[in-house]
Amino acid sequence: MMEKIRFGIACYGNLGRGVALSIRQNPDMELVGVFTRRDPSKVQVVTGAPAYRIDDLDQHASDIDVLILCGGSATDLPKQTPELAKHFKVVDSFDTHASIPEHFANVDKSAKAGGHVAIISIGWDPGLFSLNRMMAGAILPEGSDYTFWGKGVSQGHSDAVRRIPGVIDARQYTIPVESAVQAVRNGENPTLTTREKHVRECFVVAEEGADQSKIEEAIKTMPKYFADYDTTVHFISKEEMEREHSGIPHGGCVIRTGKTGLAKEHSHVVEFSLKLDSNPEFTASVLVAYARAAYKLSKEGAHGAKTIFDIAPGYLSPKTPEELRGTLL
Amino acid sequence: MMEKIRFGIACYGNLGRGVALSIRQNPDMELVGVFTRRDPSKVQVVTGAPAYRIDDLDQHASDIDVLILCGGSATDLPKQTPELAKHFKVVDSFDTHASIPEHFANVDKSAKAGGHVAIISIGWDPGLFSLNRMMAGAILPEGSDYTFWGKGVSQGHSDAVRRIPGVIDARQYTIPVESAVQAVRNGENPTLTTREKHVRECFVVAEEGADQSKIEEAIKTMPKYFADYDTTVHFISKEEMEREHSGIPHGGCVIRTGKTGLAKEHSHVVEFSLKLDSNPEFTASVLVAYARAAYKLSKEGAHGAKTIFDIAPGYLSPKTPEELRGTLL
Repeated sequence: MMEKIRFGIACYGNLGRGVALSIRQNPDMELVGVFTRRDPSKVQVVTGAPAYRIDDLDQHASDIDVLILCGGSATDLPKQTPELAKHFKVVDSFDTHASIPEHFANVDKSAKAGGHVAIISIGWDPGLFSLNRMMAGAILPEGSDYTFWGKGVSQGHSDAVRRIPGVIDARQYTIPVESAVQAVRNGENPTLTTREKHVRECFVVAEEGADQSKIEEAIKTMPKYFADYDTTVHFISKEEMEREHSGIPHGGCVIRTGKTGLAKEHSHVVEFSLKLDSNPEFTASVLVAYARAAYKLSKEGAHGAKTIFDIAPGYLSPKTPEELRGTLL
Repeated sequence: MMEKIRFGIACYGNLGRGVALSIRQNPDMELVGVFTRRDPSKVQVVTGAPAYRIDDLDQHASDIDVLILCGGSATDLPKQTPELAKHFKVVDSFDTHASIPEHFANVDKSAKAGGHVAIISIGWDPGLFSLNRMMAGAILPEGSDYTFWGKGVSQGHSDAVRRIPGVIDARQYTIPVESAVQAVRNGENPTLTTREKHVRECFVVAEEGADQSKIEEAIKTMPKYFADYDTTVHFISKEEMEREHSGIPHGGCVIRTGKTGLAKEHSHVVEFSLKLDSNPEFTASVLVAYARAAYKLSKEGAHGAKTIFDIAPGYLSPKTPEELRGTLL
């Protein structure tokens, strides 16, 4: 019988739920349990796995091969990943792009001190999109990069709308401008402003009697979040929100266009795209594949912090290098 | 001043020409020379680099960091890569999928004996397409893979048509069936026959007085190459062939559709696609990026045969790991 890789999940929200479901899809893996800051008796894990207090993690250390960290990037992971990397092999989805170098340094220090592998900033952006940007740029050094996000729900923008007085609930979709995407795909190499790349669409449930035109104005003029975009606002009922907007779809594409040839006469378009019904479940699936990599790397004695750039892709697969060469190359 | 990576090119055809041009686009690289089986005085390297006899390679061994092998997969590389891996760090584009395990074993043995790194089967298929198939499969273990090639020139099919009596010249385009690609992208998970995935289009210059209907029949019924496809044949003049069909475009896409969720209620589509004006120049650009990886790996003491699955993507880039984390993650 195959020995399974034993995983733990730290923090249990949408992402943790996705990780539990993803582990269930991989025959070489098992979930030891979920470690939560809430009362474990009140946490129902989707796959029926047990829930424990996060403070009791060390009691389970010998049962866990890799701990998958599913906290948020704003306040949880900057503390949790360095702390837990001292005692566990870990993977996180830290996604505050500008703070990645600092996070890496902190995690690297404690992972090395603990002799563990810690893989950070895994998901699709940062993650698979970063990988594709980097590889296409290395292959076509003379060219341009474009990233489009959506159509998908932006949690940050939805939250921003919810904070406006008179708003009960809100959902914001980021939508790429199709003509801009097409121009890039055609190799036209356009220079695109923020407004020309994406539009924003908001669905809002307002309080009874609230001034809808005032809410709409507050959304459209909100600095950073909406002011630089063309935004449309729809007021809908609580029922319609639940019926039509309960999913968390997302996606997007990374496109690099580049030139080769004696006089740069040849154009090439390299595109990586995602169309996801569930952003957290797909992100979780990427995390789980990289958690397998963390396990394999640690078996080889690796330690310290790593990113998607540092990991040979073969480590993601349950297949051996021989199987990969024979079936997938 | 930056010390440049010094490359040699073994065999100089379309691919070798593309490699010379690609090296010129990378400021951290230089081309020492081209090593040819022809008379070097008759080989004009596109960038003006010197040409030498391939038998004199060992005289230049100390000047070359990595040798990029640009021979053919049918007869050149099965001999050349194992032979040259004894004395050089090498990269090849061996693309006979079924023979990769054997080629790997042969190259691994001599690369280890010589203490060198040898990276095999680099390009886009095998190569980037293999990488994307493998990664998407590891991330979404329950799903289906689809690969479409084209629109592009198939050299093998063009050659097959040229061998028909009465044919002076021919160009064959492989074209994906757009409705099939769309069905896959929509997550319909179709079962597709060979005929339903691609069509073939041939442009033929026939000898004066040749029986065109006989040539067309010979093409359409040719086993393996055309019999399983819907094929259209156009007879054109030598001038039109030169004017309209002298390019070597290619491309295609790898799509994985997969399910996640408690009851597999969420679908995801992961797609990697290429649209290439020049197949050999793009393939050459991939080879050159992996030649940089061979150089970096050898600096770390790595040796033996490696494939695209075994190489951490960061090695492809001229940037340091710190720069990559700070700018591209």
